Amino acid sequence: MTAAQGFVAGGTAAGIKADGSMDLALVDAGRPVSAAAVFTSNTAAAPPVHLSRRHVADGSARAVVITSGCANAATGEAGMAAAQRVAELVADYLGCEPTDVLVCSTGPIGTDLPTDRVAEGLTRLRMSREGAADAAQAILTTDSHPKESVARGQGYVVGGMAKGAGMIRPDMATMLAVITTDARLDAGTLARSLRRAVSRSFNALNIDGCESTNDTVVLLASGMSGIEPDAQAFEEVLEGVCRDLARQMAEDAEGASRVVTIELSGADDDATALALARAIADSALVRSSFYGADPNWGRLLAAMGATRLPLDPDAVTIAYAGVVVADGGVDAGADLDLVAEKLEDDFTVSIRVGDGPGCCELLTTDLTPDYVVFNGERS
Amino acid sequence: MTAAQGFVAGGTAAGIKADGSMDLALVDAGRPVSAAAVFTSNTAAAPPVHLSRRHVADGSARAVVITSGCANAATGEAGMAAAQRVAELVADYLGCEPTDVLVCSTGPIGTDLPTDRVAEGLTRLRMSREGAADAAQAILTTDSHPKESVARGQGYVVGGMAKGAGMIRPDMATMLAVITTDARLDAGTLARSLRRAVSRSFNALNIDGCESTNDTVVLLASGMSGIEPDAQAFEEVLEGVCRDLARQMAEDAEGASRVVTIELSGADDDATALALARAIADSALVRSSFYGADPNWGRLLAAMGATRLPLDPDAVTIAYAGVVVADGGVDAGADLDLVAEKLEDDFTVSIRVGDGPGCCELLTTDLTPDYVVFNGERS
Repeated sequence: MTAAQGFVAGGTAAGIKADGSMDLALVDAGRPVSAAAVFTSNTAAAPPVHLSRRHVADGSARAVVITSGCANAATGEAGMAAAQRVAELVADYLGCEPTDVLVCSTGPIGTDLPTDRVAEGLTRLRMSREGAADAAQAILTTDSHPKESVARGQGYVVGGMAKGAGMIRPDMATMLAVITTDARLDAGTLARSLRRAVSRSFNALNIDGCESTNDTVVLLASGMSGIEPDAQAFEEVLEGVCRDLARQMAEDAEGASRVVTIELSGADDDATALALARAIADSALVRSSFYGADPNWGRLLAAMGATRLPLDPDAVTIAYAGVVVADGGVDAGADLDLVAEKLEDDFTVSIRVGDGPGCCELLTTDLTPDYVVFNGERS
Repeated sequence: MTAAQGFVAGGTAAGIKADGSMDLALVDAGRPVSAAAVFTSNTAAAPPVHLSRRHVADGSARAVVITSGCANAATGEAGMAAAQRVAELVADYLGCEPTDVLVCSTGPIGTDLPTDRVAEGLTRLRMSREGAADAAQAILTTDSHPKESVARGQGYVVGGMAKGAGMIRPDMATMLAVITTDARLDAGTLARSLRRAVSRSFNALNIDGCESTNDTVVLLASGMSGIEPDAQAFEEVLEGVCRDLARQMAEDAEGASRVVTIELSGADDDATALALARAIADSALVRSSFYGADPNWGRLLAAMGATRLPLDPDAVTIAYAGVVVADGGVDAGADLDLVAEKLEDDFTVSIRVGDGPGCCELLTTDLTPDYVVFNGERS
């Protein structure tokens, strides 16, 4: 994330998490730079989301502060005051305006953020290019390891970090990402590029169908490379970083034993394709069959049918790991024992629903007993 | 189901199920009587659903045949021919028109129904009032026991049987029910009463958010009691039977360890209340917390917010087992250890989202490791 010129970062243990691990991260561009962000569409969005949405509205920001161990969600007016206080504390620390600070929080919902600990934590923070690793560590909650990615364009760099291992679904449930670049781009181009890259990466990831109150992806552009890239070329590099981070999240999903890629084609349009693929990835019954390495294509058909979107069952073809198991809506006579053997590791399910141009690719995981046990524990 | 006058029933093992257990059930009113039915709204509805919808369109039917062990779904034209053949076989057996026979099937999707075994099974079937128990047994798939219910109105009886233990959600996924009455009612009244009773019973049940291709509820009225009840009074008796059967299904849900009742009030209207409650019951994360006896109200708030329906988080009050844990959208300071103790058995979650008149009650269950293991097994 500090691979792009102009950025420093740091992470420390502020005492928000009870176990004393790192829980405060800061990324700083040194001065207000072009900025864009995409936020959760959950109507119960947390105070830091509301605050950051206001602060980035002018297309400019200097720093992103992330606290982990407390989502500061469902905290009412006190929560909004706490988010504001965090922005002020960071502004004092950096010597900038609070409105140039974006605030993200992640962790359990419904508990108050201890801003005095954030204040104390800031006194221990060391900001540097090497601090990116600490920052990537400090934003984690149930993740098993940090997630970072870097890609190079023509004369510029895009880098990022992310967290998120559960409660992840399209529109980014409990996931946070901060992406930086030293390309020179105006805020409008940044916002458009980010929206498109997010839709094809983080929003094409569906772990457990749960959407959170705090999801945020921030993109800051320092311009320090002096390169003003073609918007389309930049978007491709950005999308690569986003997809890499999304894949890392899927691989680290709570309790998951394999990543399943759902390719769906032949729908009337891309939106329909995505709705059908999401219905599959939302189904506990389907995801249990992924866990059992069972090519139970009938459940996929039932899940798509339950959306009530136009669907001609007789036009549906389904392949697991490249083997067609259903053709024209009926059993294709494949040797399911042989197919099952191919499902022991990550695999792809390819579904064709007709002759339309709409298609999509969605990442999900299997549903496992470990997921249930993990998420049944008192938080 | 034969408690109402005029009905006989029977069940036998036709050899559809590999393990040789009963898999063919028949209910017979002796002559065409008033009939109504509600079917799945899954767009991949199975051939027997299409056939029965046609056969009941005239408001009259004589018999209902149910095969278990094969859903006859995703079977294309051959599946439609098979459903038709079953109706013909039963019509021959009873000496009636095939169009007076309704056909239901339940079991794995994507395999062909062996109609020759149905023909052979019919030769062994013994129809009698005592045969209701065999019929209730023969329709089961993953259920652990039969589900029957009887209620008495003023001079008439309503009785029914049902099956369903997984893949159950509003709009009746993989659930079948046959309900009989000896009240005298025209087809229009029957249809209206059934639709309303189903919406407040089977459709207010959400086990795993999965909707199937075969769900059917049939209601036959013999009129043999000679009593023509007030429509509203009849509807109440009918709703009682439907709710009892729905509750039995929840208690028998695959792998579930407790039934959770979600009461939601204060919404703008009933439809909004139901949509919010369903979002809660659809959430794997919420249902994992039910399994863990964890009063994790933040997850409920996030699940409701993810619907993007109008929701004022600051107006939300949530109680587990009668104890308010969140008030005005923030933590109410309850002793969560004490609350958790109340969640070891079946419990109720009460949610108030504002001051509107809309409310609903929804039955669901916890999500357990057993559910995942059970549904991960090759079928």
